[in-house]
Amino acid sequence: MKSTLTLFLLLFVSSIVWAQNPVHKVVVQINTSDTLVWHGALKNISNLQTALGANTQVEVVVHGSGIGLLLDGKTTQKPKIAELAATGVMFKACENTIRERKIDRNTLLQQSGTVPSGVAEIVLKQEAGWAYLKY
Amino acid sequence: MKSTLTLFLLLFVSSIVWAQNPVHKVVVQINTSDTLVWHGALKNISNLQTALGANTQVEVVVHGSGIGLLLDGKTTQKPKIAELAATGVMFKACENTIRERKIDRNTLLQQSGTVPSGVAEIVLKQEAGWAYLKY
Amino acid sequence: MKSTLTLFLLLFVSSIVWAQNPVHKVVVQINTSDTLVWHGALKNISNLQTALGANTQVEVVVHGSGIGLLLDGKTTQKPKIAELAATGVMFKACENTIRERKIDRNTLLQQSGTVPSGVAEIVLKQEAGWAYLKY
Repeated sequence: MKSTLTLFLLLFVSSIVWAQNPVHKVVVQINTSDTLVWHGALKNISNLQTALGANTQVEVVVHGSGIGLLLDGKTTQKPKIAELAATGVMFKACENTIRERKIDRNTLLQQSGTVPSGVAEIVLKQEAGWAYLKY
Repeated sequence: MKSTLTLFLLLFVSSIVWAQNPVHKVVVQINTSDTLVWHGALKNISNLQTALGANTQVEVVVHGSGIGLLLDGKTTQKPKIAELAATGVMFKACENTIRERKIDRNTLLQQSGTVPSGVAEIVLKQEAGWAYLKY
Repeated sequence: MKSTLTLFLLLFVSSIVWAQNPVHKVVVQINTSDTLVWHGALKNISNLQTALGANTQVEVVVHGSGIGLLLDGKTTQKPKIAELAATGVMFKACENTIRERKIDRNTLLQQSGTVPSGVAEIVLKQEAGWAYLKY
């Protein structure tokens, strides 16, 4: 009886903490060189933040032809990326893509981190309960 | 001991109720103006209903260039949308897209509802356990 | 008290078993005839296996225009499909697509199985906890 009470108390406290910190987590996949898609995807992230509130974590993973979004001289979204990064949005470039396309790492935007594999990152995020948005 | 028994009884009853009401929930994202994609996506929903049975809830969320699917004079799928809506499929247009594209709300199909943000809706549905299909 | 102890013991043992058999499950959707996408998607699966390790289960579901990936005389990925299938990757063609497009089942690659509905399969996999990758 006592242990059951403890369990319910734990659930109750958890639900209060959760209500005060409603966190939404979203992983966004971009693997196209279509600059209209880049524009739309980043605009959508702002909309997402407005709709879901400050406690929304967003990570953008680019791989394949999407890598251009995070490359100086290729991206059309430099100011928008800086703006989103300042709000906590993370940008990750796929190291497989960097290696396969012989991309100079110095051309990656300063806001960009990397992940060993873009698709593996997207899978791991989903496994950790993140919602998935594909562009 | 008694509380443990209660817990297992609860789980047992839940599983019976679940078996009698197997509900599948699917959120479908359409953000392209490609009418072939519109056609394929809606045909797929019929196939989904046939394969998964009557207790399948489907919500179609359109945003960006996908908004045309739910606009009178732009959609190529009027009869199919009426048919699917009659079976309970929900159609939701993104209000951000409506505002940004200065769309007259009177041109929305009568079967169409709206959501504040299309992408936020898709995230919230995934968080609530809905499967996700991207077109 | 004893039952609570049993529960915690069970959770503890489960977590050990899980740590020794970290299984990643990924369902990959291909519904385009774009052969560059086919090439990229299958290359990504190899990258996924490298990144996530041997205990990664991947199922590729093709439907609509994606069916060509698994058709002899249409696919551009025959050796890669054989290579991936040998590592346990499953390939499933949508029977709705086969019927609608009047495809001769004998033209399906030998590595290809079928599913009644491609989209239903993708929904069922997500419901069973599989991560989703859309191409």
